[in-house]
Amino acid sequence: MRYPTPLLTLIRELSRLPGIGPKSAQRLAFHLFNQSEEDVFALARALEEAKTGLERCPRCAHVMAAGNEACEVCLDPARDAALLCVVEQPADVLAIERSGEYAGHYHVLHGALSPMQGVGPDQLTLRLLLERLEGVREVVLATSTTVEGEATALYLAQRLEASAVRISRIAYGLPVGGDLEYADEVTLGRAMTHRRPL
Amino acid sequence: MRYPTPLLTLIRELSRLPGIGPKSAQRLAFHLFNQSEEDVFALARALEEAKTGLERCPRCAHVMAAGNEACEVCLDPARDAALLCVVEQPADVLAIERSGEYAGHYHVLHGALSPMQGVGPDQLTLRLLLERLEGVREVVLATSTTVEGEATALYLAQRLEASAVRISRIAYGLPVGGDLEYADEVTLGRAMTHRRPL
Repeated sequence: MRYPTPLLTLIRELSRLPGIGPKSAQRLAFHLFNQSEEDVFALARALEEAKTGLERCPRCAHVMAAGNEACEVCLDPARDAALLCVVEQPADVLAIERSGEYAGHYHVLHGALSPMQGVGPDQLTLRLLLERLEGVREVVLATSTTVEGEATALYLAQRLEASAVRISRIAYGLPVGGDLEYADEVTLGRAMTHRRPL
Repeated sequence: MRYPTPLLTLIRELSRLPGIGPKSAQRLAFHLFNQSEEDVFALARALEEAKTGLERCPRCAHVMAAGNEACEVCLDPARDAALLCVVEQPADVLAIERSGEYAGHYHVLHGALSPMQGVGPDQLTLRLLLERLEGVREVVLATSTTVEGEATALYLAQRLEASAVRISRIAYGLPVGGDLEYADEVTLGRAMTHRRPL
């Protein structure tokens, strides 16, 4: 016995999503089978409209409404255009915005270098970054502190060395509100090495 | 700063799926944003076609291609129609089919009793089950061995008591290939209590 074709197709399409294996895809498919037509069609429509209604900002590659000249951040005259924060994902822009500690521009790489997964410099928005350094004073490398994020930061630092731009890396240390006891030794070591005078 | 509306809509719709929280929904949405239009539209189409192309079997509530008289299992004359296996989900039917140890019919409840989540007898296909007991010799309760599955099995056993049907429960015990050392004590206790002469 096998599943009807529409079910197999849906399971196959769902299992192509990141973090969703064949078992989860099957579970999701059966869940959707038991939802109202209205709900399932709303999801399908949301997918189509996200694809047609969104574009990458031509300046910083952040996500923006399709047809706009640039994203909200790039168009904001109150922001410091000489300060550039490089992040991996659009979600990172929002995370930094929520902190309220940054008023410069961004550059979204859409990934981190990962030779294992076939992500090289050409798969990232590196060329766009190198083309927009005119008038930039400082580039803050805010890629994540994973192996891939660190390698990407290192690579970018090397590529930017030739330019006159100052290069910095977002600080390592203890998370605020974190208990020393529960911090891993690498984080604790970094926090100690990078200690600051008060 | 906030996300463009099509992105917010997609995140909201994705986060309504079971097991997908706001963070995962955001990650999925950005992943989809970076996929080709072809791929995203394929998923949207698969959703719509699963909804219009699938129905519940009018006899056993298993999933079947829309417009069919009944599902593959119900229409198979080689199967024992006097033997009925009650499961929670369509996926359970396939799991049992793969075992190759069962040649009767099925009944899919589409869930398990869970007062906490508002799932009572009326949310399951219980009425359909009670209406098809004519000519049935044995009902095997193969709901899962979770608290909800056990409660459902117990409830069904009580409801079926009045009929002349024999009622059985799928066996508890050690998983095949399982190491005794790693079995939890409840499973081990059940396996001991239900030991069989060799």
